[in-house]
Amino acid sequence: MDLALIQRLIKPAHTKIILLVMDGLGGHPSEGGVYTELETAITPHLDSLAAGSICGLHQVIGPGITPGSGPGHLALFGYDPLRYEVGRGILAGLGIDFEFKAHDVAARGNFCTVDDAGVIVDRRAGRIPTETCAELCRKLSRITLPGVELFLAPVKDYRFLLVLRGDHLSEKVADTDPLQTGEKRLPPRALHPDAKLTADRVEQFLEEARKILADERPANSVLLRGFSLKPDIKGMKDSFGLKAAAVASYPMYRGLARLLGMEAPDCGESMDERIGVIEKRWRDFDFFFLHEKRTDSAGEDGDFEKKVACIEAVDSAIPRLMHLQPDVFVVTGDHSTPARLKSHSWHPVPVMLFSKMCRPDEVDKFCERACRSGYLGPRFPTTDLMPLVLANAMRLNKFGA
Amino acid sequence: MDLALIQRLIKPAHTKIILLVMDGLGGHPSEGGVYTELETAITPHLDSLAAGSICGLHQVIGPGITPGSGPGHLALFGYDPLRYEVGRGILAGLGIDFEFKAHDVAARGNFCTVDDAGVIVDRRAGRIPTETCAELCRKLSRITLPGVELFLAPVKDYRFLLVLRGDHLSEKVADTDPLQTGEKRLPPRALHPDAKLTADRVEQFLEEARKILADERPANSVLLRGFSLKPDIKGMKDSFGLKAAAVASYPMYRGLARLLGMEAPDCGESMDERIGVIEKRWRDFDFFFLHEKRTDSAGEDGDFEKKVACIEAVDSAIPRLMHLQPDVFVVTGDHSTPARLKSHSWHPVPVMLFSKMCRPDEVDKFCERACRSGYLGPRFPTTDLMPLVLANAMRLNKFGA
Repeated sequence: MDLALIQRLIKPAHTKIILLVMDGLGGHPSEGGVYTELETAITPHLDSLAAGSICGLHQVIGPGITPGSGPGHLALFGYDPLRYEVGRGILAGLGIDFEFKAHDVAARGNFCTVDDAGVIVDRRAGRIPTETCAELCRKLSRITLPGVELFLAPVKDYRFLLVLRGDHLSEKVADTDPLQTGEKRLPPRALHPDAKLTADRVEQFLEEARKILADERPANSVLLRGFSLKPDIKGMKDSFGLKAAAVASYPMYRGLARLLGMEAPDCGESMDERIGVIEKRWRDFDFFFLHEKRTDSAGEDGDFEKKVACIEAVDSAIPRLMHLQPDVFVVTGDHSTPARLKSHSWHPVPVMLFSKMCRPDEVDKFCERACRSGYLGPRFPTTDLMPLVLANAMRLNKFGA
Repeated sequence: MDLALIQRLIKPAHTKIILLVMDGLGGHPSEGGVYTELETAITPHLDSLAAGSICGLHQVIGPGITPGSGPGHLALFGYDPLRYEVGRGILAGLGIDFEFKAHDVAARGNFCTVDDAGVIVDRRAGRIPTETCAELCRKLSRITLPGVELFLAPVKDYRFLLVLRGDHLSEKVADTDPLQTGEKRLPPRALHPDAKLTADRVEQFLEEARKILADERPANSVLLRGFSLKPDIKGMKDSFGLKAAAVASYPMYRGLARLLGMEAPDCGESMDERIGVIEKRWRDFDFFFLHEKRTDSAGEDGDFEKKVACIEAVDSAIPRLMHLQPDVFVVTGDHSTPARLKSHSWHPVPVMLFSKMCRPDEVDKFCERACRSGYLGPRFPTTDLMPLVLANAMRLNKFGA
């Protein structure tokens, strides 16, 4: 759906929207099994909500394409992830509240271990703790480059953020991470003539870093990837007239939400604490993005039963959310993470949209099997969800006379 | 789905894919009947495969558009047939192993019968045998045109291939075949100013051919259509990282497959022989395109029962293919050919994709009626099939972080 068209039709309203995202919700039967994680979970509250909802399976990018969490969430928020690519460097920065300026070039860094010949023996430097990472970032911050301001910040474990600020910089620089051990790091090659200066500065940085880290163990070198600029993207307020809050505890999702102009109030780790934040701030926002990461983590761990339990835990929180009487309540995931695959997958994701004007379908169980025969169909484009949310929230004018 | 996106996400794997195409598979109830050919056929093996598959009906170009076999197969192989048009002339050449050079202009020729006034009385010259066609092609090869090399080759029966090789030639020349009897042949009109030279040369050729064939009966004239150039198209290896084999006996399909960089090993006429080739070459390829032409031929003949029998014959071959344990096994057609119409039609075509990660739907019979409620939906874009095949073959990376 064309954002410009939606923007043209936006009208103000006092309605409230909750978008509950169970990360990696979609699943798959385990080997020899018949039912997915969601089909296995006992979810009376979600099922009862489904009975009053319009349901379906949504597809983020296209058949067979496995989305990352960034693209998955962008699409749920109404933004075409093929148009708005958020690079790995920028995502890393968003996750730690780094305040980007307009032309900053960001890269995701790994501390790694190399042998005497410079061959990578561990791409993650034995997963050094975040404190060590912070200490090493401080050391590397001493590096000076002509005409370029450098920022280094720890992200988590062996991962850090590198930001270059200065004139005439470009993000079109190749990754230096060969993505496997047994090879040397790659040169930061300019992928475009305009990136020559940036590539040179990055090479200088890497050379200086090598000297500074020479005597460190195990983190005696660095790898960089995902050179990127902050995308030029209109926020939820400008795009949809929504004052939006991200009630998420995982840094990346908070950062991505902030990139879209959402506020990200402090909220605890537990679902109870997060719902408490929504209750407390109910009058302050039009749109609440409530994020649950555990479903995805369980899937990534290959733990079918744990994912089932996570879903059941979310189910038990539904009545408290419904008590707020949201005008529109959407429950879905940003992609599938079947425990059987231990990774994201391409399978379409169950979605239901509850509102008093949703013209509900016959689906009365919230799961892959049932949602496929919902009115939204078995392969509903994810970016089409937001216009439907806005319509059900009485926030869209008629098109034409 | 954008080929460039897919290409970006391709990762290597050791998985095996079989794409079984029953040409013209989709059908229609006969007059007064209730069931299509596929619904009528008794297909226990296909049905059992469907139970473990994701099913649907695919649509090659758009609602109401009847695809030719070229576009149908291009779409199945993942190439947008609206973007990659393969002209009739080129297709004719591909079918007989003609070695095209970069700027060759090809046309499909018919020997035909005209009366003394030049009016066409039989567009197919009484369907002369291929040997006569070859003999006449040899005669016409004597024609010389200034600056243009001429190639003539018999295709089948009254059909032949004409190729013009030289500088400044263009394919933008109108057909000379009026497509009906009772009319004279049309002039090879230039459809673009750049095609003036080519049009003149073709007119000279036709004039010379008229003289040479004057005393022949029944083939005393020729008709030309489908002037075309070889399309600039990336092969399956470059597009999808697949080493692909076409196990097809019908020349046009072998030629089309070779155009996409597939190897087309010699294989017999029978399904048994063709499966034997797959078994023998199982280790040499990632992707096997197995083609069955008889379903289409029966449909074109208007022989409902024969088409049913052809489908049942294919069904009996399924266990032998499954014995190879392909990671992904797709069964479908390139278009519909209902016996009732005696021609290709626009109706969506049943498709099923079997893999251990396909998240199977409830469909447990392989036919139009059942497939319409499968997860792929009732109008799945044909070109979306290949990305889904690659995903199920674990040959696609995630998009975004």
